[in-house]
Amino acid sequence: MRYLTFSTGSDGTPRLGALLNNRVIDIQSPRTMLELIEGGPAAWTRTAAQAASTSGAGAGHGIPDIRWHAPIPRPLKNVFCVGRNFVSHAEEGARARGEELKLPERPMFFTKAPTTVAGPFDDVPWDRRATQQVDWEAELGAIIGVEGTNIDRERALAHVFGYTVINDVTARDLQRSHGQFFKGKSLDGFCPMGPVVVTADEFGDPQQKELSLRVNGVEKQRGSTRHMIFPVDALIASLSSGLTLEPGDIIATGTPEGVGFARTPPEFLQDGDVMETEVEGIGVLRNRIVARA
Amino acid sequence: MRYLTFSTGSDGTPRLGALLNNRVIDIQSPRTMLELIEGGPAAWTRTAAQAASTSGAGAGHGIPDIRWHAPIPRPLKNVFCVGRNFVSHAEEGARARGEELKLPERPMFFTKAPTTVAGPFDDVPWDRRATQQVDWEAELGAIIGVEGTNIDRERALAHVFGYTVINDVTARDLQRSHGQFFKGKSLDGFCPMGPVVVTADEFGDPQQKELSLRVNGVEKQRGSTRHMIFPVDALIASLSSGLTLEPGDIIATGTPEGVGFARTPPEFLQDGDVMETEVEGIGVLRNRIVARA
Repeated sequence: MRYLTFSTGSDGTPRLGALLNNRVIDIQSPRTMLELIEGGPAAWTRTAAQAASTSGAGAGHGIPDIRWHAPIPRPLKNVFCVGRNFVSHAEEGARARGEELKLPERPMFFTKAPTTVAGPFDDVPWDRRATQQVDWEAELGAIIGVEGTNIDRERALAHVFGYTVINDVTARDLQRSHGQFFKGKSLDGFCPMGPVVVTADEFGDPQQKELSLRVNGVEKQRGSTRHMIFPVDALIASLSSGLTLEPGDIIATGTPEGVGFARTPPEFLQDGDVMETEVEGIGVLRNRIVARA
Repeated sequence: MRYLTFSTGSDGTPRLGALLNNRVIDIQSPRTMLELIEGGPAAWTRTAAQAASTSGAGAGHGIPDIRWHAPIPRPLKNVFCVGRNFVSHAEEGARARGEELKLPERPMFFTKAPTTVAGPFDDVPWDRRATQQVDWEAELGAIIGVEGTNIDRERALAHVFGYTVINDVTARDLQRSHGQFFKGKSLDGFCPMGPVVVTADEFGDPQQKELSLRVNGVEKQRGSTRHMIFPVDALIASLSSGLTLEPGDIIATGTPEGVGFARTPPEFLQDGDVMETEVEGIGVLRNRIVARA
C-alpha cells in the first residue's frame, strides 16, 4: 500500500490517505499516519483492506485537488540520520576536506529536529543570516512500525512499517563550524519528506533501489542502496542497541556521492533552485530553495 | 516558583505540582508542565498566584507521599545538548584523547533522544551489551518558554521558562566509536532530570551557579556556570539561528571538568553506583546505575 498525508480546501487538517489508481482515498479511521503506524500490523492489514474496498470509479480525490504534507508532519522526536554511509560519498567528502579516507567502523548517527520536516513539494526556506552553503542529500527513509530494543539484524526489517524519500538538506558551513553535524542539519524546513510511504511488504528489498537527485533538471546524484556501508537492517540493529526504537521513528539512511560541497568547484544552492529527489519505487520530492533574508 | 511533575498512589498519572513550604501543591489547571509552559507568561503568572493562594497549613501532599517524575517526562523532541562548553572540561578531554586543545569556535550542539529522559531519583539502566563505559556529566538545563527564531543574545534569557538539573549520562565507548556524539548520549534512561524547574524570575543569573556531582558520596565534579565558554544567552542565540526554538524545548548547557573518562586512571560507573547531581538553587538528582544484562 502507498499511504500519504494530505489536506483539501474544505478541510485543511492533514489526514491519512491511500494512493490507489491515481486517486487519493480518504481513510476515515485511523485519521493520521502516526495513528496507523501505532496500531501495529493488525491495523495495517485492516486499513489496507478497507482502502482497497473503498477504491473504485470516482472514489476519493483527484491528485490535483489535494495539498500534500510530509507523511508524518510532526514526528515525535528528531529524525535519526546516518553520515557517510556510502563509500563513494565518504570518498568525495574526504577529498573535499583534504583528509585521508576513513570509513566508519560503526554508523555515524546524528539527528534533525522535528522543525526541519517539510512536505514533499514545499519550499525550503533559506535564511542567509544563518548559512551561505545549502546543499542536498538524497536518501531512503525507513519508518519504524514495531517498537524494539536490541533488535537482531536478522529480524530488523520486520520492525519497519514502510519507506519514504528524504532530502537531508544541509548547511555545510554550520555542519563544519559547530563541530558536530546537528546544527548544520537542523535548520527549519531542511527535511522534505514523502511524497508517500510505501509499506514494507510492497516495497520489497530496500537494498536494491536507485536513488537520484537533480537540481534545476541536471542530475547531481545517482546511486543504489546496494552500496550502503551499513544496510537498513544493520542500521536498525546498531541504533537500537540499548536505545528503544518506537513506532513512527524515522531513519534517514545516508546519501551516495554527488553532493554539492564535494564537487569541483563546490556548488551550493541559490535562491529559486529546484531540487528533485527520487527513490525508485516511492516517488519524487520537488522543493524550491527560497531565500528569506 | 518551583514546579515539579509528580504522581501519587491514588493517581499514577504524572501531573503538575508546585513545591511550597516543603509541600507539593496540586495544580488543577494546567495539568502538565508542558501545558503550563505552552500557556505563556500570562499563564505562568496566574498559575503561580493560584499555587501560592492554595498553599497553607496542611494543604497539598507531603514529599514522602509522592512519586517524582522528570519535569517533562516526554519532551516533544530530542534534548538539545552542548559539548565542551567549559575550558576545564575541554582541556581534560583533549588530554585524555592525547590531542591538542582546540576550544570550539561555535557551540558543539548534539541531541539526546526523548527515550533517555528519566526521573530525578530513577535508576539508570546499564545494558552491558551496549556499553562498557558509562560516565557522568552534571549540567544546568534551560527550558524554553517562548518560541523564537534568530533570537538576539540580548533578549535570549526572556525566552527561558526556567531551569533544571540534568545528568548527561554518556556511554564513552559509543560516543567515540560512532563518530558523532548522538549514539553514546542516547541510551534509554541516560538523561535524569529534575527534581524541579525553578522559574527564571526566581532562579536569577544562570551564570552564577555552582554545579557538582558525587559518585557514592565522593565529589567528582565541581564548577561554576560562570566558566561556560558560551553562556546560556549565547547558546540560545546560536542554536536559534535559522532553527525555531519552541516552548518546552530543553537545552543541557554543558559540563565542567571531572568526568570519569578523563581521570587518571579512567573511571566508569559500576553496577550499584549512585550519582548525585546538583545545581545551586535547584536541587539534587540521585540516580543508581543498575546493570540489566
